[in-house]
Amino acid sequence: MAVWLIPVAASLIFAAMFNKRTKIKVLLSGEQIGQEVTVMGWVRTFRNNQFIALNDGSTNNNIQVVAELGLLGEADLKRITTGASLKVTGEVVASLGKGQAVEVKATAIEILGDSDAEKYPLQPKKHSLEFLREKAHLRFRTNTFGAVFRIRHSLAFAVHQFFNDRGFVYLHTPIITSSDAEGAGEMFRVTTLPLENPPTQEDGSIDFSEDFFGKSTNLTVSGQLEGELGAMAFSEIYTFGPTFRAENSNTTRHLAEFWMIEPEMAFHDIEDNMNLAEAFIQHLIRYAMEHNAEDLAFLDQRLAEEEKSKPQAERSELGLLEKLRFVVENKFERITYTDAINILLESPAYKKKKFKYEVSWGIDLQSEHERYLVEKHFKKPVIVTGYPAAIKAFYMRMNDDGKTVAAMDILAPGIGEIVGGSQREERLEILEKRMSDMHIPAEEMSWYLDTRRFGTVPHAGFGLGFERMVQFVTGMGNIRDVIPFARTPKNCEF
Amino acid sequence: MAVWLIPVAASLIFAAMFNKRTKIKVLLSGEQIGQEVTVMGWVRTFRNNQFIALNDGSTNNNIQVVAELGLLGEADLKRITTGASLKVTGEVVASLGKGQAVEVKATAIEILGDSDAEKYPLQPKKHSLEFLREKAHLRFRTNTFGAVFRIRHSLAFAVHQFFNDRGFVYLHTPIITSSDAEGAGEMFRVTTLPLENPPTQEDGSIDFSEDFFGKSTNLTVSGQLEGELGAMAFSEIYTFGPTFRAENSNTTRHLAEFWMIEPEMAFHDIEDNMNLAEAFIQHLIRYAMEHNAEDLAFLDQRLAEEEKSKPQAERSELGLLEKLRFVVENKFERITYTDAINILLESPAYKKKKFKYEVSWGIDLQSEHERYLVEKHFKKPVIVTGYPAAIKAFYMRMNDDGKTVAAMDILAPGIGEIVGGSQREERLEILEKRMSDMHIPAEEMSWYLDTRRFGTVPHAGFGLGFERMVQFVTGMGNIRDVIPFARTPKNCEF
Repeated sequence: MAVWLIPVAASLIFAAMFNKRTKIKVLLSGEQIGQEVTVMGWVRTFRNNQFIALNDGSTNNNIQVVAELGLLGEADLKRITTGASLKVTGEVVASLGKGQAVEVKATAIEILGDSDAEKYPLQPKKHSLEFLREKAHLRFRTNTFGAVFRIRHSLAFAVHQFFNDRGFVYLHTPIITSSDAEGAGEMFRVTTLPLENPPTQEDGSIDFSEDFFGKSTNLTVSGQLEGELGAMAFSEIYTFGPTFRAENSNTTRHLAEFWMIEPEMAFHDIEDNMNLAEAFIQHLIRYAMEHNAEDLAFLDQRLAEEEKSKPQAERSELGLLEKLRFVVENKFERITYTDAINILLESPAYKKKKFKYEVSWGIDLQSEHERYLVEKHFKKPVIVTGYPAAIKAFYMRMNDDGKTVAAMDILAPGIGEIVGGSQREERLEILEKRMSDMHIPAEEMSWYLDTRRFGTVPHAGFGLGFERMVQFVTGMGNIRDVIPFARTPKNCEF
Repeated sequence: MAVWLIPVAASLIFAAMFNKRTKIKVLLSGEQIGQEVTVMGWVRTFRNNQFIALNDGSTNNNIQVVAELGLLGEADLKRITTGASLKVTGEVVASLGKGQAVEVKATAIEILGDSDAEKYPLQPKKHSLEFLREKAHLRFRTNTFGAVFRIRHSLAFAVHQFFNDRGFVYLHTPIITSSDAEGAGEMFRVTTLPLENPPTQEDGSIDFSEDFFGKSTNLTVSGQLEGELGAMAFSEIYTFGPTFRAENSNTTRHLAEFWMIEPEMAFHDIEDNMNLAEAFIQHLIRYAMEHNAEDLAFLDQRLAEEEKSKPQAERSELGLLEKLRFVVENKFERITYTDAINILLESPAYKKKKFKYEVSWGIDLQSEHERYLVEKHFKKPVIVTGYPAAIKAFYMRMNDDGKTVAAMDILAPGIGEIVGGSQREERLEILEKRMSDMHIPAEEMSWYLDTRRFGTVPHAGFGLGFERMVQFVTGMGNIRDVIPFARTPKNCEF
């Protein structure tokens, strides 16, 4: 074609095809013995001016690169520091050293990027997780966070695989929304109005008609209501996206921005809902155990070390891997809220007045109650159903007793509530009555009520907090350590 | 266990296990002939008081339910209206009628939910896409949107599959951010300050230290910079999440909230980047062609009808399926920006002064220019590289000529820019100089510059606008019709 007669620019001549490297995870499988390979990564350690431990993030394990004496000049040797990046070509050989099956006998080493040892923020000593949170990208290079975020990836993939295999449609529900129907807490305002001088109406109130969307808008707290719309056409949908809470909770369990998975299924009752949620959680754990065995082994060890520093009484009975195996291999306990209250009332903890909060039918279960049920009484995940209507959301289906709803919460050891769900109220009159009782304006929710007007069906769904699930699988105690960039009160770095 | 002695609540007795239905997509495969099944869905049509076309969203095709005369009473017959939901039990039999291989001979029909024909918003006639956008859940029940959103699902799954298979880590970059480094346009403010009476500092300016995050925060316009941090540890990462533009653009190509996929790869140069992007786009299309053949055939037909109403000169040369096949089977054209300018200058369109905007080296290519290159000149997707540095972002790698950068845009027929990417500037000094020239405060970006301080490596990445990709594959002309709930200026419904 004529255009090729025009001289090509420099950028096209630069066709070196840089990326012919072999990933270290593949190298360590040992299949390349005897072959010449190119490997690239970052230096973890450099011993005896000869042995470089190189890592590329594909695994926590390093490849040992052997730079025979004389291969590198004096000046280059000094540049091989922790964190420096290298391009190494050489032969894969069986390793004589301990701890690795193969190593690379280097024939050429190119230093791609230096890392000034004087300024490098990490030391060979162990750093606190808090300290690492401030070192955005170096945090990802540590063994702990390497394992955590590879597992997070696997769990996310397993989410999509699980639902795709079952014919669910992945529905992107909106992030910016004008409704606060979920009533799940304080919300973040989204606006393009100037804070210094916002337009006002005659009565002095803000004139949102001049805002970007022509009305007051917020960040979503849940995609459920929009998800229900999808389920009323596709039968089964799921969401997986960010959700937000503007709550001033500085705890190890709360984030202002977190990811949630919310499946919603037409033609499902509360039993179907429980079955799906249980199968889902077990699938996620099983997937990580199959695909991240090394990373889980590392975290299992890490947690065991951490436990040693605790007083005997506070230590977990099961190690991380034991716990995961137990959850996969055993059915979850299923009890009603009424059962739960009775168990608590009969418990030694209650009788010895060890609970801080009161126990009686009608209370919202507190963290201490949930932990007792899960960690002391059943020692396994528990699904609690049939909560009092008064403490649950308007869209949950009223049971025949007229006082409980077909809600279900799944409580997990060490985490507390990991899933919240319900069968939805599909009967228009009952739903309208409930909304009216709870002062939810029906006019604004007309689009939602329409699903009950034109071919309403029994349906159900639940929400799984993704970070809590990652915590559960990785054993990390602080939720800020399982999300790449945590958003919490007064903290929005990077 | 003792707890089971306590009477179980009503909700647990309701263990009917509603969801034993067979999906219509499965039924239509014909494998269940002779079996008794339960099928649930919504009525599309009801003919002769006997033949019900039922749909459950698993496919656009309906199952014909035959209700023999006498099975339903007079009152129930009247309730079988368009949109009503049914639970049907019966035998799968080979169909004698035209248009379907199997049908269900009903032995029981339960009406789950009525649909008042007087109030039902959709008529048998064809509705405009604009009208349907206002009918959130009924829109999903139409053939067009059923096909579009099942394909959207498939494309999303194919995204995850593509990267997972290659060992990329899915990284959730933050939605709320305090940086505006991308400079990609106007942003939405996120705040918990009261608009009526925000706290101010002594000089009258807003006191953001009292805002939720203690500083001014926005919705992200790109996860790239945070993605680079991930790539500097895991080698290869990708993001797939919502991004935002507060631009007042009421066009068929712009949304205020849209989903973007941004892979970022260490040890990749611009060539590797182009190769990956091309393979990625082809994978997505191939996946949809394999998994959504029926839906694509429907949309192909739909587009052909739509084309008929256009003047001959404006019609596409290729049908939807032909276009997709062509893109999958042919390599993308690769040209430099300089080539592109020369082609435009040599074009009949330029010589006849048909372009509205000027053409000369240094201009930002306008939509009309891109369309000429893609639709008239090459008639295929085109990758343009080597753009003038002056019109591109600070992080793009400077070429040796000192005036162009290793950027790449992929232009697609009918859509325009679908991918924007580049090799990143990994050299600290050049990057700092560039930032200083462009007045980007280096102090605030210290976390980003750290990646160039400690083991910097050649790396590259790109962004794919997911909705544009869905448009390309479905042939839908308006971007609002390929996202479940569109957010545009003055529009934030549902």
